[in-house]
This record gives sequence, C-alpha cells and structure tokens, in this order.
Amino acid sequence: MAHFPNSPLYQEVLHLGRLEGDITDLELEGEVPAGLDGAFFRVHPDPQFPPMYPNDQFFNGDGMVSQFRIKNGRINFKQRYAQTDKWKLERAAGRPLFGVYRNAQTDDPSVAGKIRGTANTNVLVHAGKLFAMKEDSPCLIMDQNSLETSGYTDFDGQLTIPTFTAHPKIDPDTGNFCGFGYAVAGPLTRECQYFEIDPNGTVVRKADFKVPYYTMLHDFAIAGDYAVFNVSPYFSSQEILDRKMPHFMYDRKLPFYLGVVRRDGDGSDMRWFKIDPSICGCHVMNGFQDGTKVSFDFPISKTTSLPFFPEADGTPFNKEEATTYLTRLTVDLASSGDEITSIERIGKAPGEFPRIDDRFAGKPYRNGWMITYDFDKPYNGPSGPFVGVINSLTHYDHQTGTEKSWWCGPDGALQEPAFIPRTADSAEGDGYLIALVDDHMKNYSDLCIFDALNVDKGPVCRAKLPFRLRQGLHGNWVDGSKLGG
Amino acid sequence: MAHFPNSPLYQEVLHLGRLEGDITDLELEGEVPAGLDGAFFRVHPDPQFPPMYPNDQFFNGDGMVSQFRIKNGRINFKQRYAQTDKWKLERAAGRPLFGVYRNAQTDDPSVAGKIRGTANTNVLVHAGKLFAMKEDSPCLIMDQNSLETSGYTDFDGQLTIPTFTAHPKIDPDTGNFCGFGYAVAGPLTRECQYFEIDPNGTVVRKADFKVPYYTMLHDFAIAGDYAVFNVSPYFSSQEILDRKMPHFMYDRKLPFYLGVVRRDGDGSDMRWFKIDPSICGCHVMNGFQDGTKVSFDFPISKTTSLPFFPEADGTPFNKEEATTYLTRLTVDLASSGDEITSIERIGKAPGEFPRIDDRFAGKPYRNGWMITYDFDKPYNGPSGPFVGVINSLTHYDHQTGTEKSWWCGPDGALQEPAFIPRTADSAEGDGYLIALVDDHMKNYSDLCIFDALNVDKGPVCRAKLPFRLRQGLHGNWVDGSKLGG
Repeated sequence: MAHFPNSPLYQEVLHLGRLEGDITDLELEGEVPAGLDGAFFRVHPDPQFPPMYPNDQFFNGDGMVSQFRIKNGRINFKQRYAQTDKWKLERAAGRPLFGVYRNAQTDDPSVAGKIRGTANTNVLVHAGKLFAMKEDSPCLIMDQNSLETSGYTDFDGQLTIPTFTAHPKIDPDTGNFCGFGYAVAGPLTRECQYFEIDPNGTVVRKADFKVPYYTMLHDFAIAGDYAVFNVSPYFSSQEILDRKMPHFMYDRKLPFYLGVVRRDGDGSDMRWFKIDPSICGCHVMNGFQDGTKVSFDFPISKTTSLPFFPEADGTPFNKEEATTYLTRLTVDLASSGDEITSIERIGKAPGEFPRIDDRFAGKPYRNGWMITYDFDKPYNGPSGPFVGVINSLTHYDHQTGTEKSWWCGPDGALQEPAFIPRTADSAEGDGYLIALVDDHMKNYSDLCIFDALNVDKGPVCRAKLPFRLRQGLHGNWVDGSKLGG
Repeated sequence: MAHFPNSPLYQEVLHLGRLEGDITDLELEGEVPAGLDGAFFRVHPDPQFPPMYPNDQFFNGDGMVSQFRIKNGRINFKQRYAQTDKWKLERAAGRPLFGVYRNAQTDDPSVAGKIRGTANTNVLVHAGKLFAMKEDSPCLIMDQNSLETSGYTDFDGQLTIPTFTAHPKIDPDTGNFCGFGYAVAGPLTRECQYFEIDPNGTVVRKADFKVPYYTMLHDFAIAGDYAVFNVSPYFSSQEILDRKMPHFMYDRKLPFYLGVVRRDGDGSDMRWFKIDPSICGCHVMNGFQDGTKVSFDFPISKTTSLPFFPEADGTPFNKEEATTYLTRLTVDLASSGDEITSIERIGKAPGEFPRIDDRFAGKPYRNGWMITYDFDKPYNGPSGPFVGVINSLTHYDHQTGTEKSWWCGPDGALQEPAFIPRTADSAEGDGYLIALVDDHMKNYSDLCIFDALNVDKGPVCRAKLPFRLRQGLHGNWVDGSKLGG
C-alpha cells in the first residue's frame, strides 16, 4: 500500500491501527464488580488506507468498533471494522477512493453519489441492533454480538433523510431513540429533522426545522418535552468545498444560538435564543425542563476547540480560548425575545466528553462526568490529536458543586467514559464508570472500571489489552438483557 | 480470570498476549520484492490462562500461529490459536487444567490421559495442510489459509507413535517430510522412530532406533542417505516428574552423542558417535554427506544454554558457558569406533536459530544464517526470556569463512528468520530472509525482509504491526503455489 503521511495525525496509524481481532477473558487487575452483565461499545477512526490528501484529518478514518463483553466476572474483547459502503468500495479497489473529510469534490470519480460515511463517531444498541453512526450519512446497522455489518438502513422507508446524528439520546421513560439529521435537503442546506424511534424500531415522531445558518449540528439534548440544539460558529460553504478543503471552518463573528422545539410537534414551534459575541460548544452533558424554563449543560470555550477546523479569518489556534468549561445555559419559553436567561459556569475542571447516568437524560439530574485536563500535571508522551492531553476523570456534583478527580499519571490519557447503573433501579449515579486509559509510553490500553461516585479513588478493576487502542470518539454501555443471541 | 504471575516470563503476557486477529494490507516501509508470493508462518507460546504453577515456564504456553500472506506487493496478517485438545478443554472449563511443562502428574485429574501438546514450537505446510508441532504430542492439523484447526492426526493410521518432532526437514529431491518421534514407547523411554511422509501425505519410510539415554531429542538433520541426531545431556526421570518439576534438567557428566542412521533402512544400522566430556547443542543448521563422511552443523555451547532446564548438580547458569557458536562435527562411517572425526568451529558470531536455503537441506551447502548476540552493543529494553538479547542477524559464508551482520539497534531483538528463494531455480542463497524485529521499548514488531546475501545492509522492506508479537519459536516460508484455496 501507499504510505501514511508522516504527520502527528497519521503516524499513529502505523503502529496502532487497522486490527480486527478477539481476546477472550482479558487479564484483570482487581475484580469485575459482582453481577455486572453487559457490553461496552466504542468506536475510533482508523483509516483502512492512507488518505488521498495527506493533510486530511483524524475524523476521516473508517470506523473501528470495539466491544467489551462483561459477564460472570470476565471481560472479552472483540474489534471489527464498520463495513460502510465506503469501506467496501475501497477494500475492493485496494486503495482509497474517497477524498478529504466531508468533501465529495475530492473523491475518485468512480464513487460519485456513493454514501461517504465512515460510521466512526458513536455506537449504541437500540431495537435489537448496534447502530454505528456518523452525522453526514444514514445509520449503519451491525450485529451487537458478532459485530458483522448489515449495511445502511432507512428503517423500512420510515426515515428518508440522508443524515443521522451520532449523538442520540434514549428517553428513559419511553425507551425512544431521540435523534436528528441536518443538511437533510442536501449538502450545506439549513434543513433539519428531529425524530424518535421506539424500542421496536418504529419511527414515532418527526419535527422539521431550519438552523439559523448552516453549521456542524453535532450534538443536542432532550429536556422534558423539548429537544434543544446548540449552533456554534462552525460553518461551511461551497467555496470551502471548491477549494478542496475539509468541510468546516470557524467564524467567531457568527452568533451562537440555542434552539428549543417541542418533541411532540411538527417543528414549527422552534425558537432560537441568541448569544453574540458567540460562545463555542460541541458535546452536551444533559438538558432538563422546569416549567417554562429549559436548561442545557455543556462544556464551552470562547472560540473553536477543534484546531483542525480553523478560524476563517486566519486567527491562529489559541489554547486558552479553546479550553472548555462546563456551563449551564437557561432559557425561559415564557419570554418573548431571543435572549438567554442565564449563563452559569458549573464546572471548575476544564474538560470535554461529558456523560451522565443515562437514566436521567432530559431530566433534572445531579451527577455528571467528563474527562478533564489537569494542565499542572507532567506528561511524558507525545501530544495527542486534541488540544492537550486529557489526563483526568472528574465527577461533578451539581447539587453541592464539589468535584472529584482522578489523574491517570504522566504516561497516558483517558478516553470517553460511559456510566453503568449498579442495578436497574439504583439511585442516580450509583454505579460504575467505564473508560479506556491509554499508556502512551508502553503503548497499551487498560479498560478501567470506576466507582462512579468515587472516581478519585481510581479504578476498581483494570482489564489489560496487549496494545493501545487509537484515540476513540464515543460509545455506550448496554445491559446484557439487550444483547440477545 | 486468575492472574498471571508477576515474573519476567509471564509479565509479558499481560500486554502482549492472547490476541487472535487480522490486519489487511500492512503499512510498509520500502517495497515488497517484486513477484514475492507466499506466506510466512510462525508460532509463539501464548498461555490462554495463567499457569497452574506460577514457576512454570515460557515453553508451556498455548501455540499462537501467525500467518503473513504476501502477494502483489502487499502483506496481510492473521493470527489464531492452535486449538489443541488441551486448549479446547481449558477454554470449555474457563481455567487451566494442565500443569507444568511436560509433567502430567501436575494436571487436574479431569484431563488424565488427554493429549497435553500445545502445538507451540513450529508450523510448516506439507501435503496441503499446515502442520502445527510440539515434540511431545502428535501433529496438529490446521488450514493454511484460514488457520482453523482440524485436530490431531495419525495420518490415517499410518503413524501410530504418540510424538512428532517440531523440527522436520523437507527433502528437496523427493519433497518428503522427514521427521521422527521420541519416547515413542511412553514417557521417559528411549525408543524413537524416524519417518518420511511424501507430498501426498503417505508415510513412505519408518526406521526405529533407541537413544543412548532418555533426552530431549529436539532437532536433527538429514544428510544425503542419512538422518543424524544429536543427543545433548538434557534428561529427565520419574523422580523429577514426581517432584512436580518441569520435564528436563541438564547433567554435564553425561556424554554427547551423534547418531547416524540410514533413511531408507529399518533403523538397525544406527551408529552412535561420542564426545565426552559433553558439548551441548539444540538446533541444527544442516547436515550433508560426502561419501562415507557425514557432517553436522549446529551452534554448541559448553553446557546448557536453556536456563529453565537447570543443571542437576546445582551448578548455577553461566552465560559464558551457555553461549553458542556454530560448529561442524564430522564422522566417518568407514571408521570402526565411536569417535568423532573432527570438531570445527565454523562461525565467529555467537547465536542460535540457524537457518539455510531449505532447497539444500541434507546437501553440501555454502550459506547459513543465525540470529546472533552482539554483546558489545547497548540494549535499552527489559531482558527477554533467553540468555541475552538476540540483537543481530548474521550471514555465514562457509566457503569463504566471512560473516556479515546487521544490528537491529538498542531497543529490540530479532526472532528466527526463514529463507525465501528469489525464484524456484535461483542459485543457493539468492533470495530473501524474512524475520520479525521487535521494538521492546515502543512495543511493536516489524516483519522485515532482507536481501539474504546482504543482510548487513538491513531490511529492504518493513511491514508494521500495531503491537509487539511475543517471542516466537520457529516458522517457515511456503510458496504461494502450495497454499491452495
């Protein structure tokens, strides 16, 4: 094959990528908590071939899905490529055919009109299948046990939009999968659709709306009766695509918007609340409703926190302005204007990849977790693909305002955690956090299980992998009862 | 699972073991030599479960077979466990059932009488199948393409002996697989059988003989009309087994023997030549016949080179006495006594794992290779399971007496190479050497291809693995025409 570029983003591929495999009964330090039965799924971008354009970016790698199956005190590992249409076409050709990140104008002519998705952003079990998701494409279906790919789905014709978010929420009361697509009228369009898919796979709700400007509508929240969307100044244009650049740039002169729409309506009630000069957010911790007030918690920075989506006016990436702090926005639907009622910083430790006890999605909640930056701690490894090394795991108690953190040491970093309830009806936050901790120096990863309310005490169990997993994006825990087979 | 012991021999398992998987189209540095079509198979001990006895040793791990398929300038990697009867029984039980190395008295009673083999010593394609071999057990059959295990074979009842060497030779003229078993009359017995299996899987020759004392009859040579065996003072006894110790110890007071027997006879012509005080040898480079003279080339040391088979009289392991140098023994069948005609050191660089251009097995030859110790070079990593770090690859030209070496650098070590002829009829030594080079610091392995007669120039191609393979034992190249499927 051709070579992977000798760039920080790609040099990791040489020694960390492209492995499909199985390990039965991982070596453990400590014990798996008694009774734990389920699976942790996560995904990372892992290019099957060197990129067609050497300056292409991390997010454009093919999705590699990892499954950690936990049962009877043992943990099995399985990892397979999400076999997207792109992956199959390139595997058959033996070379890359799709160009830079979300820019079809850079593709080989032979794949014109094909679905470009990499299914590399999030994986979640719903309606008896594993959904592998990338927001620019439909939902890819995999088997949650074998990790074999079935292919893209339109849910038996129920969902005709060409895109499908990678950041769904599961409504804890109905079990509905709450999601959306953006650019549903075609590339760069402002048209969006909110939808809900019930536990049997039936699409039960749809609401159409338009964003104020075309943006990366990456994540959202459910909040009681509402769905809430944050529009940060990531934008694109035909000119950017014509210049064969990656899809997004950042324009700090654009306002920030928070959109609130009823989940049970047709979308016509959408209201946009505005912050100008803008703030920048990406992932969402949670949202909740209190009468006419709707709150939305997410880590925000002053400007883009993603250096590979540069500022359009040439402003260089600024680490301080890019550092993200957990913040609560509240709007009042009883108001008549477009003003945010309050902006409150609710976390001291800077970080990203927020998680909650998912049984409280869309509801008032007390506990949140993020992987965080402790800039004061030493670091021995090479710098990763992000702003800095995410070297800590922090629990945020929104009731007391206290935070507890665990530092993973100087040799590595953490990947996004997921929450596991101790039992189906245990109290909020009573359970475990599961996360990969990578050793950048010895080149291996440990899957770590923490007591969720005492993460500062460090992992209660470590499962050893014989290699380091590449930096992942998102994943989820599923209870064993939902695995079937 | 239970824990692997925190010993040098087992700590590697935590982060290097138990992975079954596939990588398609490995990233390369340099180019695969044009026209290369075939596969390199190798195997390493890789315990599926922690050992029942913490002081058990490296050689007792379950066989993990790696396949590097090379075609059209690309290299694919596949790795699977050899699913021996032992592996299947332990997998089903979820725990180890077989005790220490080759000592059935240490086993769980539930597996009494079961075949104890691990198939972890050598892999070679013959008669359309992959043979996975361990000298204490029958031959395990695997598929050379999928690496799926069929199971143990007695070759349709043609081979009834309970053991099967892991160091066969292929007769380049007949294509016969030349092998033997020892302890064929039961544990600790002196009875052995030489055999040949033709390219269709038919057993065409058998010759029975007895060794002078029960020993680890590990390797041998074919030499024209003869098969040649080296008896070094590795021994065992019922007392050792009763003490629940690993199978072998070393007694430097025992003589060394070289046995020569006609390959086409019934074994009754076996002659033993003696060296006393003994020398110690393990693996064989080659043998050849010159009229009544038979020569046998192998690296030898003054005493045991395997620290885990300690001296019976308590003499501590001595690195200098254990260092192995390539040596040629010659005997004359026209003589009447049991004396060796000559002992000649034919290599300057100390080393082990000797290889040749296998098209010259049993014939006069010019070129040999070993992985060698350059004790003067620095080493940054942890010490491996062997005497010292095998940090160089050396070509020995027996015609000129010159040697060419390549040092792999301070961070790693080499594993056993195999020779690949450039074409089926190219001259002796004209081709490639293929070998794994491990980086002990960054924890990955590269599969390296060298110009066989210019190994000192370093690899012409490196294929990158995203992890480090455990220290392997032996393997072989097979031409693509013999892979079938």
